[in-house]
Amino acid sequence: MNQQAALARSDDATAPVLLREDAEGIATLILNRPQARNSLSEAMLLALAAHLTALAKDPAVRAIIIAANGTAFSAGHDLKELAAHRADGDRGRAYYKLIMESCANVMQQIVKQPQPVIAAVQGPATAAGCQLVASCDLAVAASDAFFATPGVNIGLFCSTPMVALSRNVPRKVAMEMLVTGENLTAEDALRYGLINDVVAPGAARSEAMAIGRKVAAKSAHVLKLGKEAFYRQLELGLADAYNFTAEVMVENMMARDAEEGINAFVEKRAPLWEDR
Amino acid sequence: MNQQAALARSDDATAPVLLREDAEGIATLILNRPQARNSLSEAMLLALAAHLTALAKDPAVRAIIIAANGTAFSAGHDLKELAAHRADGDRGRAYYKLIMESCANVMQQIVKQPQPVIAAVQGPATAAGCQLVASCDLAVAASDAFFATPGVNIGLFCSTPMVALSRNVPRKVAMEMLVTGENLTAEDALRYGLINDVVAPGAARSEAMAIGRKVAAKSAHVLKLGKEAFYRQLELGLADAYNFTAEVMVENMMARDAEEGINAFVEKRAPLWEDR
Amino acid sequence: MNQQAALARSDDATAPVLLREDAEGIATLILNRPQARNSLSEAMLLALAAHLTALAKDPAVRAIIIAANGTAFSAGHDLKELAAHRADGDRGRAYYKLIMESCANVMQQIVKQPQPVIAAVQGPATAAGCQLVASCDLAVAASDAFFATPGVNIGLFCSTPMVALSRNVPRKVAMEMLVTGENLTAEDALRYGLINDVVAPGAARSEAMAIGRKVAAKSAHVLKLGKEAFYRQLELGLADAYNFTAEVMVENMMARDAEEGINAFVEKRAPLWEDR
Repeated sequence: MNQQAALARSDDATAPVLLREDAEGIATLILNRPQARNSLSEAMLLALAAHLTALAKDPAVRAIIIAANGTAFSAGHDLKELAAHRADGDRGRAYYKLIMESCANVMQQIVKQPQPVIAAVQGPATAAGCQLVASCDLAVAASDAFFATPGVNIGLFCSTPMVALSRNVPRKVAMEMLVTGENLTAEDALRYGLINDVVAPGAARSEAMAIGRKVAAKSAHVLKLGKEAFYRQLELGLADAYNFTAEVMVENMMARDAEEGINAFVEKRAPLWEDR
Repeated sequence: MNQQAALARSDDATAPVLLREDAEGIATLILNRPQARNSLSEAMLLALAAHLTALAKDPAVRAIIIAANGTAFSAGHDLKELAAHRADGDRGRAYYKLIMESCANVMQQIVKQPQPVIAAVQGPATAAGCQLVASCDLAVAASDAFFATPGVNIGLFCSTPMVALSRNVPRKVAMEMLVTGENLTAEDALRYGLINDVVAPGAARSEAMAIGRKVAAKSAHVLKLGKEAFYRQLELGLADAYNFTAEVMVENMMARDAEEGINAFVEKRAPLWEDR
Repeated sequence: MNQQAALARSDDATAPVLLREDAEGIATLILNRPQARNSLSEAMLLALAAHLTALAKDPAVRAIIIAANGTAFSAGHDLKELAAHRADGDRGRAYYKLIMESCANVMQQIVKQPQPVIAAVQGPATAAGCQLVASCDLAVAASDAFFATPGVNIGLFCSTPMVALSRNVPRKVAMEMLVTGENLTAEDALRYGLINDVVAPGAARSEAMAIGRKVAAKSAHVLKLGKEAFYRQLELGLADAYNFTAEVMVENMMARDAEEGINAFVEKRAPLWEDR
């Protein structure tokens, strides 16, 4: 297990705010501000963006896990950092624009990432932390995990988090979280589709690795084209979605890995993917 | 608990078709045609529209409950009233247009209402009555509640109700209700996201009040901007939704209640909202 | 029970690839390549298209069931047939385009079919077989049924199947099926809305008939207009969806079967539909 130097460091400590560990073709990004409940500070958002950009170009990485050190997954934006910029000449407007856009960009980067991204959650995943889970392709959580969009309690409605949340759970479930600020348990998150699995406390990362291994055994080329097509077709009407994906299927059939995969299946042997 | 005069009265009785009770910043609108299973007659639709319009301008009201007197929540359109207009010169066409548009407008008024709207349901909520529940932001139901779109049984497919229904539950669940006309139990409604909670018979209104109290404790300004953004972003693609809500977040950050709320949080005290 | 000649025959047998049985106003189309796990060969797709076209014009048919002979519902595309076309001058490109478009057309034909279409599933429903279930208006499954989009295992991402799948289940559930290739049990399919009911092994077709009978008792005219409106309004924003369906409701009110149905309801008698 190699551990690369983080691309950004926290302001108040020598420890990097985001760690990366690689194993078995799976890169795990670890939020590493446990003392600040892994809040998504400016440095954390920059580190996530930089790591995801680097991982997108890394052919050795076939799946990504986003995990967290400490008892919390992530408490969302760093409120102290936000509050400090009230002292700016514009009362913080330019800084808030920077942070909100950076955060929205990181969330969309996850969606555009060529590799599947799996969240491994323990404890609270709140506000932008909940959005981070919702933005991942897959998510697993320990039974002690919970999810909330409590911005309404501090006068800041979770408007960007709800973009991801409302595309994952039924609208009344999302609305209740948004207007009451209350928690969704891991069991309810599973029931409504926000996460894929609930495991015992302490087991979220190993469960994410188990899923990561399954994903990493597939053709990276095929995962990339499939994931990209998935999110694109979701925004199209039915006829357009079929016209688009029928073309994707034909191109996929012409790809080397489909020829190999289908031949291997017919010949009852394991396929050998191009980049393996 | 003050009770205002209803804005419209039923044709056949001195009792108002819709009552309003205010308590703790929460206005409860009570469908009051129990003898007609609270069907949404022309008078009832007019009363709902007028009350919602008045409530939208009332700064003392921070949450709205829609409840019903009697054993039924609402049986949908008033079929006797509709049937009577067959005698019109145009066989009722103009009247049906009026009623269908009035009904669709009331449902959209709920969505546009600045305050969160909570349905408190007992017994049957069928056809436009089911639509009324689906159109609310939140809903709680007694365990004796059930939901149906049985128009197909009388040759009138629940086409407007399905607009709200199909945006709340999985499409095959909606389709089964629509083509068979059969009931969805309160438990299944909870499971699929049509309602937020199931409580004991007789307890729906008190449960709605409990949620209403939570909502009423938040900043009304922030609830208004958040609810409006919620429904707008739902109809946008992901990139547009993020561009829009990132702007909403910045404006929200600049608002007085966010500054107060974040300061209160950092200072570990309760926030004091602008309009309180 | 009359059994019509199938419109297409399998290459390797005298048995038709698709059977039709009619009873009680319900036509059951039976996938009949059990030896090939009912894979959707070119002949099968042609037979489905031809039968659905014929059924659309048949006023005696008020509901359609898609069922399957053998232990599998359908394993999706016929991989041997696809692999054989690698020998074509264009490495199969033209043939794959033909098959993918034919398949997408059959799925959309089900959505446009005037009658409700009910899938009756046992054993595996995988890849385009899973898509077939997702494309039906309703679905019931035996407890031994399971659902999967395992194309990723053979280098061919289930890009067209995901169009239907992702419109039936939460996105993380769909994504897990797509990137891991793993099975969704019948119970989980029910929980997430992919199917309407789970029954004992061997009972899927009789349960589909029970639902079919309920549907067949409704006005065929009303079912047709309602189903068409259902899928159209799903693709519209809320305001457009209400404008459209309010018009549909008015036209529906002017139809003979609504007049009859509402009169029958008010007079407490059974309605007599126009085409019965």
